[in-house]
Amino acid sequence: MSEKRVYAFGKDQNGKNVTEGDTSMKWILGGKGANLAEMANLGLPVPPGYSITCQTCMEYANAGNVWPEGALDEIWGYTENLEERMGKRIGDEEDPLLVSVRSGAPFSMPGMMDTVLNLGLNDQSINGLIKQTENPRFAWDSYRRFIQMFSNVVMGVDGDYFEDAINAKKKEKGVKDDTELTAEDLQDLVEVFKGIFSEHVDGEKYPNLVVDGKVAFPQDPKVQLQHAIEAVFGSWNNERAVIYRQREKIDDNLGTAVNVQTMVFGNKGETSATGVAFTRNPANGNKEFYGDFLVNAQGEDVVAGIRNTSPIVELKEIESLREAALQLEEIFCTLENHFRDMCDIEFTIEQGKLWMLQTRVGKRTATAALHIAIEMEGEGLISRDEAICRVQPDQLDQLLHPQFAAGAKYDPIAKGLNASPGAAVGKAVFSAEDAVKAKEKGEKTVLVRWETTPDDLSGMIAAEGILTSHGGKTSHAAVIARGMGAPCVCGVDALLIDANKKQAAVAGTNIVIKEGDVISIDGMTGDVVYGAVELAEAELSKDLDIMLKWADEAATMKVRANADNPHDAQLSRDFGATGIGLCRTEHMFLGKRKEIIQTFILSEDQEEMDKALKDLRDAQSGDFYEMFKAMDGLPVIVRLLDPPLHEFLENGREIEVKLATMKLEGAPKERIEKMKVFLDKIDSFAEANPMLGMRGCRLGIMYPELPHMQARAISTATAKLIKEGYNPKPEIMVPLVSTTQELDTMRKVCEETIADVEKDYDVKLNIPIGTMIELPRAAVTADDIAKYADFFSFGTNDLTQTTFGFSRDDVEAEFVPKYIQDKLLPSNPFATVDKGVAKLVKMGVELGHQGNPKLECGVCGEHGGDPESVKKFNQIGLDYVSCSPFRVPLARLAAAQAAIEQK
Amino acid sequence: MSEKRVYAFGKDQNGKNVTEGDTSMKWILGGKGANLAEMANLGLPVPPGYSITCQTCMEYANAGNVWPEGALDEIWGYTENLEERMGKRIGDEEDPLLVSVRSGAPFSMPGMMDTVLNLGLNDQSINGLIKQTENPRFAWDSYRRFIQMFSNVVMGVDGDYFEDAINAKKKEKGVKDDTELTAEDLQDLVEVFKGIFSEHVDGEKYPNLVVDGKVAFPQDPKVQLQHAIEAVFGSWNNERAVIYRQREKIDDNLGTAVNVQTMVFGNKGETSATGVAFTRNPANGNKEFYGDFLVNAQGEDVVAGIRNTSPIVELKEIESLREAALQLEEIFCTLENHFRDMCDIEFTIEQGKLWMLQTRVGKRTATAALHIAIEMEGEGLISRDEAICRVQPDQLDQLLHPQFAAGAKYDPIAKGLNASPGAAVGKAVFSAEDAVKAKEKGEKTVLVRWETTPDDLSGMIAAEGILTSHGGKTSHAAVIARGMGAPCVCGVDALLIDANKKQAAVAGTNIVIKEGDVISIDGMTGDVVYGAVELAEAELSKDLDIMLKWADEAATMKVRANADNPHDAQLSRDFGATGIGLCRTEHMFLGKRKEIIQTFILSEDQEEMDKALKDLRDAQSGDFYEMFKAMDGLPVIVRLLDPPLHEFLENGREIEVKLATMKLEGAPKERIEKMKVFLDKIDSFAEANPMLGMRGCRLGIMYPELPHMQARAISTATAKLIKEGYNPKPEIMVPLVSTTQELDTMRKVCEETIADVEKDYDVKLNIPIGTMIELPRAAVTADDIAKYADFFSFGTNDLTQTTFGFSRDDVEAEFVPKYIQDKLLPSNPFATVDKGVAKLVKMGVELGHQGNPKLECGVCGEHGGDPESVKKFNQIGLDYVSCSPFRVPLARLAAAQAAIEQK
Repeated sequence: MSEKRVYAFGKDQNGKNVTEGDTSMKWILGGKGANLAEMANLGLPVPPGYSITCQTCMEYANAGNVWPEGALDEIWGYTENLEERMGKRIGDEEDPLLVSVRSGAPFSMPGMMDTVLNLGLNDQSINGLIKQTENPRFAWDSYRRFIQMFSNVVMGVDGDYFEDAINAKKKEKGVKDDTELTAEDLQDLVEVFKGIFSEHVDGEKYPNLVVDGKVAFPQDPKVQLQHAIEAVFGSWNNERAVIYRQREKIDDNLGTAVNVQTMVFGNKGETSATGVAFTRNPANGNKEFYGDFLVNAQGEDVVAGIRNTSPIVELKEIESLREAALQLEEIFCTLENHFRDMCDIEFTIEQGKLWMLQTRVGKRTATAALHIAIEMEGEGLISRDEAICRVQPDQLDQLLHPQFAAGAKYDPIAKGLNASPGAAVGKAVFSAEDAVKAKEKGEKTVLVRWETTPDDLSGMIAAEGILTSHGGKTSHAAVIARGMGAPCVCGVDALLIDANKKQAAVAGTNIVIKEGDVISIDGMTGDVVYGAVELAEAELSKDLDIMLKWADEAATMKVRANADNPHDAQLSRDFGATGIGLCRTEHMFLGKRKEIIQTFILSEDQEEMDKALKDLRDAQSGDFYEMFKAMDGLPVIVRLLDPPLHEFLENGREIEVKLATMKLEGAPKERIEKMKVFLDKIDSFAEANPMLGMRGCRLGIMYPELPHMQARAISTATAKLIKEGYNPKPEIMVPLVSTTQELDTMRKVCEETIADVEKDYDVKLNIPIGTMIELPRAAVTADDIAKYADFFSFGTNDLTQTTFGFSRDDVEAEFVPKYIQDKLLPSNPFATVDKGVAKLVKMGVELGHQGNPKLECGVCGEHGGDPESVKKFNQIGLDYVSCSPFRVPLARLAAAQAAIEQK
Repeated sequence: MSEKRVYAFGKDQNGKNVTEGDTSMKWILGGKGANLAEMANLGLPVPPGYSITCQTCMEYANAGNVWPEGALDEIWGYTENLEERMGKRIGDEEDPLLVSVRSGAPFSMPGMMDTVLNLGLNDQSINGLIKQTENPRFAWDSYRRFIQMFSNVVMGVDGDYFEDAINAKKKEKGVKDDTELTAEDLQDLVEVFKGIFSEHVDGEKYPNLVVDGKVAFPQDPKVQLQHAIEAVFGSWNNERAVIYRQREKIDDNLGTAVNVQTMVFGNKGETSATGVAFTRNPANGNKEFYGDFLVNAQGEDVVAGIRNTSPIVELKEIESLREAALQLEEIFCTLENHFRDMCDIEFTIEQGKLWMLQTRVGKRTATAALHIAIEMEGEGLISRDEAICRVQPDQLDQLLHPQFAAGAKYDPIAKGLNASPGAAVGKAVFSAEDAVKAKEKGEKTVLVRWETTPDDLSGMIAAEGILTSHGGKTSHAAVIARGMGAPCVCGVDALLIDANKKQAAVAGTNIVIKEGDVISIDGMTGDVVYGAVELAEAELSKDLDIMLKWADEAATMKVRANADNPHDAQLSRDFGATGIGLCRTEHMFLGKRKEIIQTFILSEDQEEMDKALKDLRDAQSGDFYEMFKAMDGLPVIVRLLDPPLHEFLENGREIEVKLATMKLEGAPKERIEKMKVFLDKIDSFAEANPMLGMRGCRLGIMYPELPHMQARAISTATAKLIKEGYNPKPEIMVPLVSTTQELDTMRKVCEETIADVEKDYDVKLNIPIGTMIELPRAAVTADDIAKYADFFSFGTNDLTQTTFGFSRDDVEAEFVPKYIQDKLLPSNPFATVDKGVAKLVKMGVELGHQGNPKLECGVCGEHGGDPESVKKFNQIGLDYVSCSPFRVPLARLAAAQAAIEQK
């Protein structure tokens, strides 16, 4: 026997439940079909019908839109059975059965796929409907809607033809509103619509619709039904559905089920109604029935917003609907207890009788998710662990940043990538300098740049938000903004920036943003708005606090933060970080300090170099003092200088162009000579592949003065704080280690320096020394390396680069976006840790513990703030993840969920 | 009891052998000491003595030149024992014992460390020596030599003082030659030398030598002995020894033994002689005694070449030495049979009595090594496997390239890196173009460049050899030259090239090499010679052929070659390659074809692109036709296009400089605009990290036209050859795969194209499709990838880059040389495969076979031609290695040795 393709739901003619599925079968029946079955099984009033499986959809599609053998017969069998159960026949002239044909995939894809209502109407059954309803206007209106919907949705006829015809009719009759058209008018329109159908449907494509050499609207309900089902199947692969799935990471091979269900009508007078509802408030999570209804209306009217809906709690105040309303409230409780979660419901009351059309677990805001989970735990409905797992970690981002206020009205002038969450309003400025100046005057700004560079950092800090026309979600602007928790919209192609003129035109509009014009950006949606949008401030709610405390109790893996300055350190602490997992010291080398390090790099003699080193040491010592103080009692991992030195220098290409210009302009010979020497020096630091070159510990090995200076600054700050009664806990991290000898060499420099400071300050310092594991060689030889390390921190950003042979730049440009689109990669490997990279991390942890059983292992880098990655790291058995301060709450929750899942 | 530090060798006073060591103890006694012991055990006449262990040297050095407890007492004990055994006392006035003090490390380090002879002479024992020898001149000369040697070697006094004193004496006496000085003259010199000693030895450093407030030459033999031993220990760490060990990869922690041995004299008249000998001819391997001797002479005279030596076979023709000579020849046979190898021997005949001073397995040329191994196998002295292991694979390089003729005399004007073996003589040319022109005229040239680029390739092919002033052993010039088998000397800093003037000055000389001047280079030594040096041509000898046949029988791993053109393919076949393991198709895109690919990359419309593709396909099809034909019946792995596209384009920086110049020079606006557009296009292909970017299969995925074109060219060439009755065996290799999806995508393009060609030509094509494993991700997920691959070829060059996070450029510049020098790396990981990289290869092979049990695995890249790496690959279980054609014989031998070792 072949596979079962159709499943009935609802009762038979004797009131006996003949449902064949249940809620567990969503992979077969889709979410809608499985829950219709579940409701029927619970004894709830569900209009009878059947579901065609998702697998049938995929087989049909994969065979090039050809029906699997026997499938249609199975469908006709179930259709006849439905007619029997209802005691009505489709297309019947006396009492016709009308059905809806709806899609229903395993995951909700709202509005993405097709629906056909009122199927079964034809020139015969229209009479039956008139007889049964005694409402010819309703009947003709239903027929005209069916033809319109069938033509548009199933046959792809442009909907404008029908709208035009309706408008023509209204003009002819001298009326303004559809509702003013009479039954006769609508009957006329049915004929007009049939004509449109004949004219615009291609007879060669649909030979079965040709009657007497002309295409005709199909009168055979079976033909209507088959076409409608095929259309729903086809809609699985329509463009908007494909894009939606890609965005939501839904598998293309799931397919959609098709639900064929008896029509019920909420528009049969004052005893009829229709509505949508939630069992709790999905906005704030309060325990109250929530939703809207309309009396004497169809479902689509509630959603369309043409008529003013009433709140669901008022339903029972309407006498004619009171009984149904009470039953509905009871069902709310039944469903919530059954699904143990807040449910989202669609219902219709037809002439006093309540029908349940859909239920599913309801979507909710982050605030609501938190509140509902905490309350349900309190009610005993769900366990503590379940409560923790009920909140999506990613949702927490909403709570930690200001948002456009819920009711605010605005028209975006452009849209970019939602690179860093939160919304900002401020005057547009076009340079970091201007942002800083404005800040000094107390003005709020949005920094608008083509793309940001490390030189823009002061401006990025001064501005409320960052807006760039180039670069993607891992561009400099995006990464830094997320790190700072600043809103950022990136890659707004439409923004044509002229930084010299301090203005930006918006392509396709005549809007020009000038310096000082107020703009608003929403880093959650990517919207850019000209003018001010009202903001709702972020709040660290009581619920969030409770939830995160629960999370910390459940988690086994700790969460630290990446922070490079005292302010971020404090923020991390406030967000519950248990330490600093990564302090990137090069981020301390900005502004004035950048000049000092340039002097060090380009120094011609020992004296100049020593002076620069001393200046750097003094500055760093101050930085560390403040950082360690802010994190008093908690570990702070300081990474020694990492980037290639040329990053601190000017660009050779620009200088060479300048040099060529100087020569032609006849600049003095000695100036040219000096420039040449400077260029040679700069070029001597350039590298063909800077990511694969002289950086990380290699710098420290070539210039031992640098780690010596940094170790001294760290030790001195620590010694001072101990003398002052604090409990500083610094750790020194050596970057980019590939061999044990590198780590050993760097370790010795640090240990000697620490010992010197211990002597100078007469104090005992306990400063663990460890390494970043960010090269494949380090991961596969971790057993050796661990012998010289007190801790490992996996630098999964760089590890991803070398493991894949990608650079991060590739994520923006060229092939990585194409790879993700074409499914050559499941997702951006710099956002969610890749399987191969995770394997290397696992190997590193296991081998590392072989080499040093006391080894502490963590991960720093953006993956530490990605819930899916956090789960993998928990499985691998890391001690902690470290992420940017604003991702700390999210990571705490993700760590807890990972621990619970792994139980 | 503490560790034994001193071992006796030779007989006691009763003629009983009291030797304590043997040849197996070279790690303790050094090579010399262990073999002296072995000879004594064999009953051969060895002057008695003792060896102080290597371990004592290291303890002494590691403690900061402090003697381990008890060590000196043990030495004094053995010294007394030696006096007893010899029946003589050191420093004795009647019959003094004289000893030599020589170094002897576990590995031969010729001339690197110190030796002191005639130790024990002082103002008393000189009288005893005169009495015993009845030769005052000999005695005073010995004393004068001893003071000179002790002062210079042990105390570090400049040798010139002594030479000056001798010259002054000769002038005073009006003689020209040392030998004309009388015993009295020499006695005077002894006093003068003592004065030099007193003047130049620092009394504060050596308080024990101060007598009456003045430094005096030590008269106490114990003091002499202790200082001499300490000097030999110290010489282990002198600069030249350290550099030598580094070059020869000898462990710094081995230390040297010290051999204290009774002096014997070959200069006691006509019944005395001294000589060095080999048991077979070390130049050609012929079975004949080989070496030189001098009658009435000391060992150093033989080596110094002041007197004309006689061939060893003539020794027995001298009546007074005949008996000793016959004994010596018998000993040659004894030693060869005992050591089962050719031996290198030093001997002295003192007044008719033969003494053996040293033996060891002798060094030999590659020709000799081959011949000796083959003959000894024939004699039954060694097994076939032993014969195979007797030849160092690296030595074969000598046999495959022309060399400077053995007797040729020349003075190098400069020295560079020995980048590619072989010697070349030709006229200096300074551009590829000039090399090509000269070739057309039939002239031989040496191409002199600052560094070569791919544009120089035609010139590199035309020239006899390549000489560069920059770049190291893995520079472009070096890599390409090795691939072509062309001699190359790289990085000759002293060469100051002015390519415009077509000349090169040699720093530190007044030589200027002008275009057309004949120069000679030796890629084996790095020598550069002004003028022509006589060359000895390479020959593929009969012995080599026999040996390689033996090797192929013993080996389990096959050897293929990397070849990119029909000529190299033929060469590979001649050298015994079993296929082409890597054909780099981008190497086919030179000259005219480079222009075509540029057109493709920069094409503005489809038509232009299609035309370029068609041209490329036609050209490639011809290339492949010839390659497959040359390799008829053997596999040829063709790698699809790999390098980033910008490598085919001009340099953006240069264009930008040109653009700036054009603007200032007032070039027409449209020319400037055009240039700008061109620059933008060029820049759009630039990458911050080209090694980590858009290259390899990523090109093929972004531009499916490229793999399609190449697959079509391969298939067409194959189809044509099949039609012509050949048996072409191409395989398609996809480069830089990191995910299964990449390989799957590329595989599909290739398979579809192959199927098309099968149809077009009505022929069945069997073209396996596999991938390079050259990214860590590919290695760790090889189980998945293997499901889509017929074969893996490990690209260990690139794998080394990403595993380490090095780029190959780093090997030249900056830190990698320092790493190797400071032992942060054992060797250049691009030459000998690294441990971590090998681990990834192993993982790749094991996982790969899990995914596809039929998977064929090989390695391409330079490691395939490195014997040490070949051994590791054999252990890992690869099916083949692939290397440049000239390394094929070497790899065949290495593969055999690896198989034998693994037995």
